Amino acid sequence: MIIVMKAGAAKKDRDEVLKRIRELGYKPHVIHGTTRDVIGAVGDERGKLVLQSLESMHGVESVVPILQPYKLASKEVKREQSVIRVTDDVSVGGSQIVVMAGPCSVESEEQIIETALAVRDAGAHMLRGGAYKPRTSPYSFQGLEEEGLRLLSKAREVSGLPFVTEVVNPETVELVAEYADMLQIGARNAQNFALLKKVGQLRKPVLLKRGMSMTIQEFLMSAEYVMSEGNQAVVLCERGIRTFETATRNTLDLSAIPVLKQKTHLPVIADPSHGTGNYHYVAAMAYAAVAAGADGLMIEVHSDPEHASSDGPQSLKPSKFALLMERLKLFAAASDRTL
Amino acid sequence: MIIVMKAGAAKKDRDEVLKRIRELGYKPHVIHGTTRDVIGAVGDERGKLVLQSLESMHGVESVVPILQPYKLASKEVKREQSVIRVTDDVSVGGSQIVVMAGPCSVESEEQIIETALAVRDAGAHMLRGGAYKPRTSPYSFQGLEEEGLRLLSKAREVSGLPFVTEVVNPETVELVAEYADMLQIGARNAQNFALLKKVGQLRKPVLLKRGMSMTIQEFLMSAEYVMSEGNQAVVLCERGIRTFETATRNTLDLSAIPVLKQKTHLPVIADPSHGTGNYHYVAAMAYAAVAAGADGLMIEVHSDPEHASSDGPQSLKPSKFALLMERLKLFAAASDRTL
Amino acid sequence: MIIVMKAGAAKKDRDEVLKRIRELGYKPHVIHGTTRDVIGAVGDERGKLVLQSLESMHGVESVVPILQPYKLASKEVKREQSVIRVTDDVSVGGSQIVVMAGPCSVESEEQIIETALAVRDAGAHMLRGGAYKPRTSPYSFQGLEEEGLRLLSKAREVSGLPFVTEVVNPETVELVAEYADMLQIGARNAQNFALLKKVGQLRKPVLLKRGMSMTIQEFLMSAEYVMSEGNQAVVLCERGIRTFETATRNTLDLSAIPVLKQKTHLPVIADPSHGTGNYHYVAAMAYAAVAAGADGLMIEVHSDPEHASSDGPQSLKPSKFALLMERLKLFAAASDRTL
Amino acid sequence: MIIVMKAGAAKKDRDEVLKRIRELGYKPHVIHGTTRDVIGAVGDERGKLVLQSLESMHGVESVVPILQPYKLASKEVKREQSVIRVTDDVSVGGSQIVVMAGPCSVESEEQIIETALAVRDAGAHMLRGGAYKPRTSPYSFQGLEEEGLRLLSKAREVSGLPFVTEVVNPETVELVAEYADMLQIGARNAQNFALLKKVGQLRKPVLLKRGMSMTIQEFLMSAEYVMSEGNQAVVLCERGIRTFETATRNTLDLSAIPVLKQKTHLPVIADPSHGTGNYHYVAAMAYAAVAAGADGLMIEVHSDPEHASSDGPQSLKPSKFALLMERLKLFAAASDRTL
Repeated sequence: MIIVMKAGAAKKDRDEVLKRIRELGYKPHVIHGTTRDVIGAVGDERGKLVLQSLESMHGVESVVPILQPYKLASKEVKREQSVIRVTDDVSVGGSQIVVMAGPCSVESEEQIIETALAVRDAGAHMLRGGAYKPRTSPYSFQGLEEEGLRLLSKAREVSGLPFVTEVVNPETVELVAEYADMLQIGARNAQNFALLKKVGQLRKPVLLKRGMSMTIQEFLMSAEYVMSEGNQAVVLCERGIRTFETATRNTLDLSAIPVLKQKTHLPVIADPSHGTGNYHYVAAMAYAAVAAGADGLMIEVHSDPEHASSDGPQSLKPSKFALLMERLKLFAAASDRTL
Repeated sequence: MIIVMKAGAAKKDRDEVLKRIRELGYKPHVIHGTTRDVIGAVGDERGKLVLQSLESMHGVESVVPILQPYKLASKEVKREQSVIRVTDDVSVGGSQIVVMAGPCSVESEEQIIETALAVRDAGAHMLRGGAYKPRTSPYSFQGLEEEGLRLLSKAREVSGLPFVTEVVNPETVELVAEYADMLQIGARNAQNFALLKKVGQLRKPVLLKRGMSMTIQEFLMSAEYVMSEGNQAVVLCERGIRTFETATRNTLDLSAIPVLKQKTHLPVIADPSHGTGNYHYVAAMAYAAVAAGADGLMIEVHSDPEHASSDGPQSLKPSKFALLMERLKLFAAASDRTL
Repeated sequence: MIIVMKAGAAKKDRDEVLKRIRELGYKPHVIHGTTRDVIGAVGDERGKLVLQSLESMHGVESVVPILQPYKLASKEVKREQSVIRVTDDVSVGGSQIVVMAGPCSVESEEQIIETALAVRDAGAHMLRGGAYKPRTSPYSFQGLEEEGLRLLSKAREVSGLPFVTEVVNPETVELVAEYADMLQIGARNAQNFALLKKVGQLRKPVLLKRGMSMTIQEFLMSAEYVMSEGNQAVVLCERGIRTFETATRNTLDLSAIPVLKQKTHLPVIADPSHGTGNYHYVAAMAYAAVAAGADGLMIEVHSDPEHASSDGPQSLKPSKFALLMERLKLFAAASDRTL
Repeated sequence: MIIVMKAGAAKKDRDEVLKRIRELGYKPHVIHGTTRDVIGAVGDERGKLVLQSLESMHGVESVVPILQPYKLASKEVKREQSVIRVTDDVSVGGSQIVVMAGPCSVESEEQIIETALAVRDAGAHMLRGGAYKPRTSPYSFQGLEEEGLRLLSKAREVSGLPFVTEVVNPETVELVAEYADMLQIGARNAQNFALLKKVGQLRKPVLLKRGMSMTIQEFLMSAEYVMSEGNQAVVLCERGIRTFETATRNTLDLSAIPVLKQKTHLPVIADPSHGTGNYHYVAAMAYAAVAAGADGLMIEVHSDPEHASSDGPQSLKPSKFALLMERLKLFAAASDRTL
């Protein structure tokens, strides 16, 4: 931490700050500036956010953190890229771009099996589908719950695709984990720390979506929550942040991909369906995400989007998804990756 | 809903849309414009978000919702202002401005009792304090949990102030409800629907904080979640939204107060401590919130902010809080309210 | 500036950085941390943003500025509050809350004189009105230009109120200055540096509006542009920033008022009309701005808002404005100010 | 426009609205809903924003625009993609991805010529460089002005590359136009309507950057300003918007590319240097922009970024730029484009 003193702060105030820094287990180091003093507090500040409280002290103007507050997620701690194994056939973070595709919600056996076969035939590696749905309105369809999990399992059997599905409540995490190959934490729960801790206690890969107004640093802190409980198998997913722009449902922040690649060893995928909220823009943003360095994609596909019970406007029909996968191969190759 | 057709959309496409609107239980009404047709779909669209899926249909440019999607929270359903009773002595939404004050976290018996007495003497009506803390870092202090609830109860006994405290996990909601007078849903859990449903099943007043990137409409939808489970005792709390500005921790959106007053009958309070993140600005924003029409305030007070285990920089010392309460009386009076 | 080295950066890299810091005229000061070195560069960094370029050097992780980049606008340079004289009768920044009211655009002689008399009778101190209008659409009414200035002058004669009006082009600044008592720089031109320099060369008070996505620091840098050309008579105006919220046209950032009061000696006023974009919310936000410490208000008043050629939805009718002024007196008094 | 009446609005109020709609030259069309009436106003609403003023009328809840407010920039008016000719050799919007590269500011003859040759050899099609610099601080380097234009012309002579440079003041637009091949409007001037009109009166291609907090619709309205003055040669440039994220200087909104491609016939390029503010991320975002459908790129290249007088941290060295161009060919090919 760097503690910036006010211009003309009294020596007494500075001495109090130095004393407090030592009490907290850091070594202070004063730099005398032309108009003010600046104090470096040397010591591992991670996990000691308490230094921030120095801002309340007399004569202190501001406290500036220097170190990133995460450890396990950091590239400084683990230099080599993590490869997260989902099944024997599917791993995220290696040379293969992993595509997870399927409907927003599981609606019926026919729908999920038909879609699973379609996305498999187009080249997808995993099936996605919601059984527990966090909907903004209490009057919207809330998902088929355990029945949805059973249908997803049946679709896995038929198609051979492992599946990822969302968990929304610590109380049902274990139940979902019995069925699913990968557990998704949705954007609205990205700082639901009770839920993060719960999935951290399992040994099941976790797909962690970025919250709508989460900074990249906070995103990595949420990953750190899962990892600090013992589960290192975390895949990050950029899915759009909230900005003033309304032409898209969210603003897909693709620059988060190279930034994350610089800061963490965890794999990073992108969700252009939620990121744009409009099927017209999904293909362009899927290509762009791979070009930006994404390790995978999550894409909504629905055989009949006009009758979907959720997220119809952003779902691709299987035929359009197949075209997207064709073209995507070229972008994967341009990135020295396979699809 | 208004369905806007593309300029030059085929008659066939329009007919398909009309058919689909009827299938969904609405009555379509076409307006022929100079360059395009616009279709009104008449019927109660609340709870039928499914109309949005028309956006996937051929020839449709966009679908524009007209009605607000909430019912129970709406002023159209209940015209008169709701007054939420916490105890025989304290109600939020009446002529009295209700002030809830106390530390961010309960740290020790001495700390919480000392603070409770100080804020009571300064004129606060309720005590606030966190026993379960949703902290961004897994390495930060996570709260005293049930022990914290016991200390809050002791402070209530000594000071006579009822207390509000946060719930973070559906699994512990009932436990917290046994101790607390009011349950707080924090900003990070404002769209944790599992948690919202759980507090909706109790008969305990709920203080619902606005999520950091929640629109006012989504905020009311979260209130609707609680209310649709049967619990009508919801108080809304504006606590700052996330914007590009970094001079304050969040941007306290005081205009949300008159907007909410126009749309809902639920009481609205403001939290200038989290809203600014800096004790220097708390008093000014507390006065402004009351002038804007707030029904109450939540303010962090800590007897020793430099040693606080969380949120030190935004906590007021008891002496400053007492001065704030003095001046606040004038603003309450200017608003025809009492303190 | 603080230069943060990468963990494990080579000694050679650090030496290069030290050399470069000295070349740029600063004195380097190394703090050896547990995982990395941090270098303080001592010297007045204002006007030498070039230090930022150290971020390109090998082994450097980031460069963190410490000092605020403005001087003349800063409270460190001038401690006492500035009072900006507009006429013998009107000054902004003293004990009186100054209210500037009038239509968005000057439309006709009748309209501007009628409104000037109405706002004067209600207690306003200055007239506002646009002759040159920066409109988002080239097809919208662009203002009466010099004819508008003549009408404003006539309204000043009749009502006795001095007027403030917007300048949009360096080429017409001098012309406007011949008529107006105060020159307004609008939000869209808040970083139009050619325009800022031009008004800085005059000796006419300037009302500088905050840009829609300007940080408070950038806002003060724009004031610094005007002041560095010699014109110290700058009044700042918070008028709403752009956020994700759409219930209001902008988000009026009232916390900018106490923040600015802490950082600058310049007076600060608020514009609740543009800040909310909806006349329903103007009074509440006007009271709140004064409670937050504003030195004045700018409010749109139109005698016939339904027929206004711009900004009708946010304009108050004279009768509503008069009621607002009545109630505002109470809030001014609660703030130890007069109206 | 759609005018939404309040639930239970009086018939008298509705009749007033109908009358006013007719007065304004539109044909009203009432839809009787279950709880409220909705009125469609038929007629070309572009250039008649005045309908918005209906929001002030009694009984009106809101006014919802339906048509886009731009004409000349719209794909509805001109279906085929525009190709903007800069010189006989360089056109933007055709099958070739056009790359404009060079330093942020022109600093010296040696610097600009050296850089021009380097970017030409790496495959760039145009030179970029600032002679007039809109800097946030009045104390920062403001550009070499006309001397800079002379140096850019010399670099053009030596390298054969046409150049684009920024205009910041209507008073110097004609001077700049005598030297430059393309005129750039910077982000801070994107709603400087006096400047937009001025470049609209010339017959010189214009590179229009998106303002930091401009919606896509407003961006197209700024293009409309230029076009409505007669200059149709406009190229749009996405260069990052302002959001809460601070890991990058701006958030490069690549989804703006497919959205713009759907709405306008004008070419769209991206600026990953300003968009990220950090040279580490430039290559990834350049590839992504092309994959998203961009017609070109603007990239900052400086032979000695550590000594650059502006924007050092985001400038690439020539060797890194050459590598970027190599890899970019693959992404251009994957997009069926050439480089």
